[in-house]
Amino acid sequence: MGGEATVYRQRLARLLERFPHLGVDAILFFEMNNICYLTGFTGSDGVFLLLPDKGVLLVDGRYVTQAGEEAPQSDVVQYRDKISGVMSALGGGEVKRAGFEAAALSVELHEKLREKLAPGLLVPLTGVLTGLRSVKDGQEVALLREAADIATKALLQVIELMHPGVEERTIAMEMDYRMRALGSEETSFPTIVASGPNAALPHARPGPRKLEDGDAVVMDYGAVQGGYHSDETCTFVLGRAGAKFREVYVVVKDAHDRAIEAVRAGAACRDIDRIARQVIEKKGYGTYFSHGTGHGVGLDVHEAPRLSALSDQILEAGMVVTIEPGIYLPGQWGVRIEDMVLVKEDGCEILTKISKELKII
Amino acid sequence: MGGEATVYRQRLARLLERFPHLGVDAILFFEMNNICYLTGFTGSDGVFLLLPDKGVLLVDGRYVTQAGEEAPQSDVVQYRDKISGVMSALGGGEVKRAGFEAAALSVELHEKLREKLAPGLLVPLTGVLTGLRSVKDGQEVALLREAADIATKALLQVIELMHPGVEERTIAMEMDYRMRALGSEETSFPTIVASGPNAALPHARPGPRKLEDGDAVVMDYGAVQGGYHSDETCTFVLGRAGAKFREVYVVVKDAHDRAIEAVRAGAACRDIDRIARQVIEKKGYGTYFSHGTGHGVGLDVHEAPRLSALSDQILEAGMVVTIEPGIYLPGQWGVRIEDMVLVKEDGCEILTKISKELKII
Repeated sequence: MGGEATVYRQRLARLLERFPHLGVDAILFFEMNNICYLTGFTGSDGVFLLLPDKGVLLVDGRYVTQAGEEAPQSDVVQYRDKISGVMSALGGGEVKRAGFEAAALSVELHEKLREKLAPGLLVPLTGVLTGLRSVKDGQEVALLREAADIATKALLQVIELMHPGVEERTIAMEMDYRMRALGSEETSFPTIVASGPNAALPHARPGPRKLEDGDAVVMDYGAVQGGYHSDETCTFVLGRAGAKFREVYVVVKDAHDRAIEAVRAGAACRDIDRIARQVIEKKGYGTYFSHGTGHGVGLDVHEAPRLSALSDQILEAGMVVTIEPGIYLPGQWGVRIEDMVLVKEDGCEILTKISKELKII
Repeated sequence: MGGEATVYRQRLARLLERFPHLGVDAILFFEMNNICYLTGFTGSDGVFLLLPDKGVLLVDGRYVTQAGEEAPQSDVVQYRDKISGVMSALGGGEVKRAGFEAAALSVELHEKLREKLAPGLLVPLTGVLTGLRSVKDGQEVALLREAADIATKALLQVIELMHPGVEERTIAMEMDYRMRALGSEETSFPTIVASGPNAALPHARPGPRKLEDGDAVVMDYGAVQGGYHSDETCTFVLGRAGAKFREVYVVVKDAHDRAIEAVRAGAACRDIDRIARQVIEKKGYGTYFSHGTGHGVGLDVHEAPRLSALSDQILEAGMVVTIEPGIYLPGQWGVRIEDMVLVKEDGCEILTKISKELKII
């Protein structure tokens, strides 16, 4: 993470302000990205207990050293097993109502804790950090920007390899390798390289199919910096683009551009979705745009807000969201165009830098 | 997966036999590797409902095509959201007691389901598939063998790159790239390359540290085939090995060898751990062997059985487990030696083929 201790203190302070409203005097966090957001700890397992006067980071033996280094402002406590760790952290009897993340705790672990604790002590909470995490601070935006830059540089290298005869999975492998060589910690998600008829599947996995002259190739990829994920999609054409493809590309690009023009603080997420969707519907392709227009990105590659017809969220300055309309013609091909943008008071800034004009390679 | 439909039918039949004992007339599966084991479906989200007369695979719109292809023996049903999907699948009122995986269902989802279902309909179950999954069939062993072979080939290439001045993270990146180029679907886990003092941390992450002459280098890595994970660790030395290092290496190697000699059907997992541990304790390094001796591997890189002092499991023919003793001297260096072995009636077969004799490179 590399975050300043003050950043974590501020995040904890904002949560503590909400304790009375939530009706709790402590919160147990089990979701690792939420724990990372609150403490800086990047291990794969642990529990964070936020008390009015301190934060306690509970980890197993593997992570004691790392937790101490990454989360110096938390008390780090080693547990032998999670149940006994939580029990002793809650032990003093001072905590009367401990909130917990209901979406991140399993029924099994919950039952084991409940058996040992006073009735009613555990209070299920939903989306405690959703609002906080969706609005990024300057450091988070800087990491997202770096991640997007790495992915851009890698893609420019990989475009050079995209020739007829090369397998989709080779392109994906080279993309991942180059992002990492340029400093990415991992890939945001399994890189998508979908060519020809595979491009009609929004979540195709790269396989042994060889690129062919005239193919549409959808590439969806992201790099990771300090735990923050970038997300971008380009659709290229190999050699030559048919008239129908050009027509559809223009429709998707227009939906993408108009949605981005509408992004600003105060806009309703469902309106951004509607703007993109109406462009596509008007041209008769509405049934072929089978997913939402975008989503927040950060420590998770998919996080709040959701830009879809069902969303009731409002954009705020500092949110980072994707705009990614697509048209998928089953058995033929597909087009998706995606940028990651930073919401501002009066508009937005595009963080992903590859040109989205139709590119024939 | 590429599994035969008969394999899945047999697995389901063995589960159905246990319905009376479990006291259920249906089971809801939420853990994706368990769903993959029972159906062949490899998507990242879904629910599998096993009924006495059929299996129903519930997925969202992204996965309908893939589920139909990968799990032809299941009824594939698309849901808009998981709750409504499960509700309509259970809808007819014929299911009176539906077991569910208590370790894989969140408190939040459980509450939402419980509110809509008859009281007592949902029955928490623990480890329903643990026993079945721990004993591998011929096809599973073949995939584990292929995965181990890929990792071996990649390692032999990467050894050539291990020179003073090369960064740990470069070695890790090259290892991952070569495993994938040789056909690995992904890496079993984040590859460990721990050099010099970092080798004293069992779960070190590869960083910018440059290899130095005289370094111990612990490499822990695995490849994936058909969803099955290999797992192997080598400890090399660069240039020259000191007397103390040679001594410790021999102790770990001896612990590893004796444990492997003891592996056979009927042996207690805790006895295998004890055999390795005693070798190390006798030489005075007991406190520096800070983890268990091994674990099962398969669709998960860590699965049943556990080979530790606390385990009450017995080895069975067809189990595939790791044997991985280590000694970690804080601030100095460490040695871990790990092979993945197939348990047989009268012994075991080592699936990971790199020689574990001390190698100076």
